[in-house]
Amino acid sequence: MFYDECVQALLDRGVKIEDIANCAEFLHKPYQNDITKEEIIANIQEILKKREVQNAVLTAIELDRLCEEDKFHNKEFQKAVLDDDGLYGIDEVLAYGICNIYGSIALTNFGYIDKVKPGIIGVLNEPQKGCCNTFLDDIVGAIAASAASRLAHGKKD
Amino acid sequence: MFYDECVQALLDRGVKIEDIANCAEFLHKPYQNDITKEEIIANIQEILKKREVQNAVLTAIELDRLCEEDKFHNKEFQKAVLDDDGLYGIDEVLAYGICNIYGSIALTNFGYIDKVKPGIIGVLNEPQKGCCNTFLDDIVGAIAASAASRLAHGKKD
Amino acid sequence: MFYDECVQALLDRGVKIEDIANCAEFLHKPYQNDITKEEIIANIQEILKKREVQNAVLTAIELDRLCEEDKFHNKEFQKAVLDDDGLYGIDEVLAYGICNIYGSIALTNFGYIDKVKPGIIGVLNEPQKGCCNTFLDDIVGAIAASAASRLAHGKKD
Amino acid sequence: MFYDECVQALLDRGVKIEDIANCAEFLHKPYQNDITKEEIIANIQEILKKREVQNAVLTAIELDRLCEEDKFHNKEFQKAVLDDDGLYGIDEVLAYGICNIYGSIALTNFGYIDKVKPGIIGVLNEPQKGCCNTFLDDIVGAIAASAASRLAHGKKD
Repeated sequence: MFYDECVQALLDRGVKIEDIANCAEFLHKPYQNDITKEEIIANIQEILKKREVQNAVLTAIELDRLCEEDKFHNKEFQKAVLDDDGLYGIDEVLAYGICNIYGSIALTNFGYIDKVKPGIIGVLNEPQKGCCNTFLDDIVGAIAASAASRLAHGKKD
Repeated sequence: MFYDECVQALLDRGVKIEDIANCAEFLHKPYQNDITKEEIIANIQEILKKREVQNAVLTAIELDRLCEEDKFHNKEFQKAVLDDDGLYGIDEVLAYGICNIYGSIALTNFGYIDKVKPGIIGVLNEPQKGCCNTFLDDIVGAIAASAASRLAHGKKD
Repeated sequence: MFYDECVQALLDRGVKIEDIANCAEFLHKPYQNDITKEEIIANIQEILKKREVQNAVLTAIELDRLCEEDKFHNKEFQKAVLDDDGLYGIDEVLAYGICNIYGSIALTNFGYIDKVKPGIIGVLNEPQKGCCNTFLDDIVGAIAASAASRLAHGKKD
Repeated sequence: MFYDECVQALLDRGVKIEDIANCAEFLHKPYQNDITKEEIIANIQEILKKREVQNAVLTAIELDRLCEEDKFHNKEFQKAVLDDDGLYGIDEVLAYGICNIYGSIALTNFGYIDKVKPGIIGVLNEPQKGCCNTFLDDIVGAIAASAASRLAHGKKD
């Protein structure tokens, strides 16, 4: 299991758990005004303990790194990934691999946050020379969307 | 194949192809300002020709009708469906059965439109005594989201 | 939450938890020979405690019942559902709504068991006059596939 | 669009279109005994013309190559991918990105072929020193499963 590796890899790529928590708060606060940042962070940590989530996070970050290090064999394809071409959808495919585990609320949350791009998601989405975050912004969105879904289900129970 | 039956069943439930086209336009116009309503409608008609889409549309409308006719065996469950309880997610599961066919852009589009609820989706979502549109609003959103995805792919090619 | 209602509804349709456990055992035993029936049953009970699973189970059983009671509005469509037409795939769409929660092993398990049809799944799949199990056999397969996935993950941890 | 690049990349990794066609034939022949290899190959070529399929194929093959070239940053994670650990499911997640486009028959077909491993899928699945086909075997299975689904739908229409 790769929990610590995931937290560290996210941090190395500029993403703190707090940044993801802010995105989850943006999604969930309208439904539960008294939710605390601590509860949200605890939820995100539970999500990051799931093996399938860890595998998606680490695969995504390897792809971003290898892309920006110019290691892809097909350079034209590498350019499409680096530019986060709107019709390259494998970043979202990996994100759905996370959201699916947390049910249909996670999937709709992801679609919404992927368009609105609050906080760190917007920052990651800004083109930056020599830097590839094509996969990372979707992974962050998927974890935030899953945390909001988990909170919605927990609140009801 | 049930193309005519789908168009008629949608109409019987208050949804014209033009209403779905308005939702698809809301999603796609920011990316292609010169898109015409005719192109969007043609796209939606192509989507409605797919067997899996027809099956989802007809199943969804049967469920809405049988729910509002008080035909469910489990009445407490029927009430959860009728109230479109936020944690009843099978309406979204059926919607994803449509979106999946049109790729990851369709899925993110759906998540967005499901939150923003433009046009007919907002109308269907308003509670109305004796009327169940729990499944229909998501089906309309899924068709609009798929049309916008289809247009995005077509535009590029 | 509808745990007891799900267990009862399955029983009313001829499916005991033990029947589902036999299907899960068929999938998981090759990987862990010393697994006990008690552990498998406990796993299935955990799965049935999930709200999204309960919603899928109850929706599926309502559809089967309303179909065999001739309550669908579109009778030609009702016949396609009753006959479990090979190209009617909404039963599988509902099943994936369960499997997705338990990750990619659950999905591949489901595809396999849906072809091989061991035990109760084969029984449910036999055409029987006046009886519709179009949705139920896939729901049983999805729960068994999810249980085997849950066991695979638990074994490793 | 990367059609030629996909065909070439598959070939470079030891997979001919005919190999995939043999897997699709294994799935579809029981339902249509007079299907010809030419029809199956034409179906696979249509699938490979889809942008989302091309993106999945090229991403998968980049991952396999970069893994066997020891380019991953996290070496423990690289080893889990190289060994095709049973609980590493991102290869299946990419495969579902293809199957979803071809509907629920494609998904069940994939689950079945992923267990039975006919022809080239079994060959790719054999551990081979210094070689990583963790992603490729699932991509081949997904294309074959999608071709069989496409044939099933086409046959009926």
